[in-house]
Amino acid sequence: MEQSPIDKLINDISKLPGLGRRSAQRIALFLLKNKDKNLSPLIESLNLSYKAIVECNNCGNIDMKNPCNICLNNSRDKSTICIVEDVSDLWTFEKIGFYRGLYHVLGGSLSAIQGIGTDELKLENLLSRIESNNIKEIILALSTTMEGQTTSFVIADKLEKFNKLNVTRLAQGIPMGGEVHYLDENTLNTAFQSRKKIT
Amino acid sequence: MEQSPIDKLINDISKLPGLGRRSAQRIALFLLKNKDKNLSPLIESLNLSYKAIVECNNCGNIDMKNPCNICLNNSRDKSTICIVEDVSDLWTFEKIGFYRGLYHVLGGSLSAIQGIGTDELKLENLLSRIESNNIKEIILALSTTMEGQTTSFVIADKLEKFNKLNVTRLAQGIPMGGEVHYLDENTLNTAFQSRKKIT
Repeated sequence: MEQSPIDKLINDISKLPGLGRRSAQRIALFLLKNKDKNLSPLIESLNLSYKAIVECNNCGNIDMKNPCNICLNNSRDKSTICIVEDVSDLWTFEKIGFYRGLYHVLGGSLSAIQGIGTDELKLENLLSRIESNNIKEIILALSTTMEGQTTSFVIADKLEKFNKLNVTRLAQGIPMGGEVHYLDENTLNTAFQSRKKIT
Repeated sequence: MEQSPIDKLINDISKLPGLGRRSAQRIALFLLKNKDKNLSPLIESLNLSYKAIVECNNCGNIDMKNPCNICLNNSRDKSTICIVEDVSDLWTFEKIGFYRGLYHVLGGSLSAIQGIGTDELKLENLLSRIESNNIKEIILALSTTMEGQTTSFVIADKLEKFNKLNVTRLAQGIPMGGEVHYLDENTLNTAFQSRKKIT
């Protein structure tokens, strides 16, 4: 039997990340109860995004240009690449604004469960970027989850052949504002082992 | 300064009920990372809904027809109208399926804070439906919140002029599966006052 447009809409909305059937139903009703005020502008905005937004072939960022504005920006340090898992991580860096180098968006981290291997992570593209540009430092800014750490090791391993390349990762330890008695064992252990001399 | 399509999209998604900026960002990225697989079908589905779905002028339900399939269905009991606050309440009744009469969707309940008065609730339409059809029973199926109860009283008051009309409301008491020691004071008090003889 064919689905009615309402059921289809609820179904399609519930496929969005973080939404279940109840919230999809609530959103569908919100859109349908005032189509011209709520549904029309959303369709317009989605159409605009569909047309205007592209992925950067160079770094994997999404933008209105390919290569993206970050890759094309001449005031940025083109000898440093920060490797992030996702575009949202890139956005977080850009929002804070202290980093002035380039990025490389992996699009995930290695995960046997989710079937993400090295082929999925655009690593070849990273290697050719390093080879053909004068890259001096690679910063691994991946999550400190099991998957993120594994991915960091695999990438660091692949980068070993570049003798002059500096490969770094984000410091691990107590987060700012963190209270020692709330820390998990791993974090406390890491922070203890990596303790620094007060100068 | 003009917003970029990405910012505009995140902004428009975050206006949907139940979504904040973080979840809107997550959904936008999900849509943009694979436009043809994720964004296109959603746009299509929203467009279809925009064209196909209309509000029933008779009862306030949303459907592909006006009057809706429930109002047009000759196997339903056309002498009973169940008054609900929202289309989602109607869907809940229909999903369970025991009710075979008609509906009247108010579109909310009276609320001084949200500026919803009797004019907003399509009450005139309800009165004319009762007048021009041979309605025998009105079932008030509104929430037992303050607003819902006030709305029930106001509607019951307006219906007093129909001498032969039976006006009922849903029973109040302990919900099925409810444990007495977890019940709030109001529910327990109501259930106690409305206690029934075991036959």
